[in-house]
Amino acid sequence: MSKVHNFSAGPCILPQEVFKEASEAILNFNNLNLSLIEISHRSKDFVAVMEEARSLVKELLNVPDGYTVLFLQGGASLGFLMTAYNMIGDHKKSAYINTGTWSSKALKEAALVGEVDVIASSKEDGFNHIPKGYTIPTDADYLHYTTNNTIFGTQFKEIPNTSIPLVADMSSDIFSQQIDVSKFDLIYAGAQKNMGPAGTTVFIVKDEILKRNRVDIPTMLDFETHIKKDSMFNTPPVFAVYVSMLNLRWLKKNGGVEAIEKVNNEKAALLYAEIDNNPKFKGYAAVEDRSNMNATFNLTDESLKEKFESMLKEANINGLNGHRSVGGYRASMYNALPLESVQVLVDVMKAL
Amino acid sequence: MSKVHNFSAGPCILPQEVFKEASEAILNFNNLNLSLIEISHRSKDFVAVMEEARSLVKELLNVPDGYTVLFLQGGASLGFLMTAYNMIGDHKKSAYINTGTWSSKALKEAALVGEVDVIASSKEDGFNHIPKGYTIPTDADYLHYTTNNTIFGTQFKEIPNTSIPLVADMSSDIFSQQIDVSKFDLIYAGAQKNMGPAGTTVFIVKDEILKRNRVDIPTMLDFETHIKKDSMFNTPPVFAVYVSMLNLRWLKKNGGVEAIEKVNNEKAALLYAEIDNNPKFKGYAAVEDRSNMNATFNLTDESLKEKFESMLKEANINGLNGHRSVGGYRASMYNALPLESVQVLVDVMKAL
Repeated sequence: MSKVHNFSAGPCILPQEVFKEASEAILNFNNLNLSLIEISHRSKDFVAVMEEARSLVKELLNVPDGYTVLFLQGGASLGFLMTAYNMIGDHKKSAYINTGTWSSKALKEAALVGEVDVIASSKEDGFNHIPKGYTIPTDADYLHYTTNNTIFGTQFKEIPNTSIPLVADMSSDIFSQQIDVSKFDLIYAGAQKNMGPAGTTVFIVKDEILKRNRVDIPTMLDFETHIKKDSMFNTPPVFAVYVSMLNLRWLKKNGGVEAIEKVNNEKAALLYAEIDNNPKFKGYAAVEDRSNMNATFNLTDESLKEKFESMLKEANINGLNGHRSVGGYRASMYNALPLESVQVLVDVMKAL
Repeated sequence: MSKVHNFSAGPCILPQEVFKEASEAILNFNNLNLSLIEISHRSKDFVAVMEEARSLVKELLNVPDGYTVLFLQGGASLGFLMTAYNMIGDHKKSAYINTGTWSSKALKEAALVGEVDVIASSKEDGFNHIPKGYTIPTDADYLHYTTNNTIFGTQFKEIPNTSIPLVADMSSDIFSQQIDVSKFDLIYAGAQKNMGPAGTTVFIVKDEILKRNRVDIPTMLDFETHIKKDSMFNTPPVFAVYVSMLNLRWLKKNGGVEAIEKVNNEKAALLYAEIDNNPKFKGYAAVEDRSNMNATFNLTDESLKEKFESMLKEANINGLNGHRSVGGYRASMYNALPLESVQVLVDVMKAL
């Protein structure tokens, strides 16, 4: 069969060699003559997987001392609540920048544990840009933002400059570009974009946050529970952690985040140039805030829809539909998507 | 390589044909030329998986109308908290039977949302039996119990007779025996025993419980959130749901719960007969409360330890160590463990 160009927004493409190794481990893991998914999570073979996964996150993102990496369950959606519980402090107040669907959901959970100050929002403009020129209150316990907005195709180009603790949901751009982890008190990300398959969420927790005055937190939502047990308080999502580890190994072998960032810049530049130069298309997001991960665009002439979509199908391009809340098209160009696939898409756009 | 007899307590053995099909789907799912784990969870191919998994649960357990089946994340450990939030009502009081480690953890979370009445406990006897003769208060919002206690090897042989709503954590014996679901308001179970791999939890929710006066519940912990979205409020743990579906298909093909219950009874009878007849061994749990899933036993003469364990290794028997909190041995005989494996273990015990 011919190759599929997979632009799916997540769960998304991962490297072929990761699929191959994962597939083999389901039959026979580490030559144990047992499947990866039928062994105890307390066995030395699986404990080694968990430890390598945690340590690859630290290595690839240059995580400084004083931070703990956790692989948990529940998705970023449960992360919204865990963030609120673990970050709220004496002020009983948090600050949020609202840049889309996911940050809206995040701040909704924060309202359960304290006052929420939405200090900036692009909601009235259909979240088509990243707000600028906001003031960060000094009496909030933390500032939360979403680094990349998958649905609208916007991305922060700079880390907000703040004196209060900083939290970021990096679900859709973690491992795609270099970041200065030392600026953050908490980073979290659902796996199913650049890290691995759906089913686990990575948390990078500054240990210091546990030392503040904290509210009562249910056991499973408390980072302390998981830090004390090396991310194995209860049975972890074995397969999702294993495949994340394989994928992070692949990233390391291919030059790490610095190298992939260059490829990601190249892919984005190629596609956005076509969107800007081809009068049949227009971009959705403000040019200066365009996401390198998710390019959102529309046809200028809707009557070309059927023709364009039939050409996409012909070219084996998958997953290009925009999110149901925005419509149009969305090309997700995560780490494992080769430049070649973007070129195929651009060729189709040129030929329309 | 010779066959491994996998008595692991969970994650545990699943059928070989399930491993094979899961392994293939990682490379090419439904002939899409895409991996199961790189497609959108909103694609028709994955939505069909989720719907079949939910419907197989209903079919295999004869779930009556008026119940909704959900596949969520977080394990039974998060289920403890979700139970408390969703079941607490006007009485602000719950009743728990404490039969081991997991029920102890469950009632700890319940204390966050109301008063907890521990109506019976076998804690002082090292949880070696199931308490009897307790009184169930009529002013509690619900009664919670753990049907099978993996660590201590005890199992309820009857459903508690109660007029108040009944909740059961069935993590380690769901799908192993027929149950009358209509007696329960809520059943939940981590997948990693008889249902599938680690990474998802099944909830069988009586829709009626959502109609009572309810406390404020964080979005992700509220069953209503997930029921409204057909178990797809956020990205589900795709692989774990898929493999659970394959495993439930296997169970259906092999005669369903009624047929597997007979095999499970046969396996347990074979092993317990050896424990009782062989003076070198003694059982841990009270005879009348013995679990059909997890048989716990000890050597009567500890000096035989090294010899026994070397014979187990020689026979390719895996996962027989008791839980670290109890010691001794634990033979977990979940659905996919063949009678032949129990026979191999019994032969080793005879030969000691």
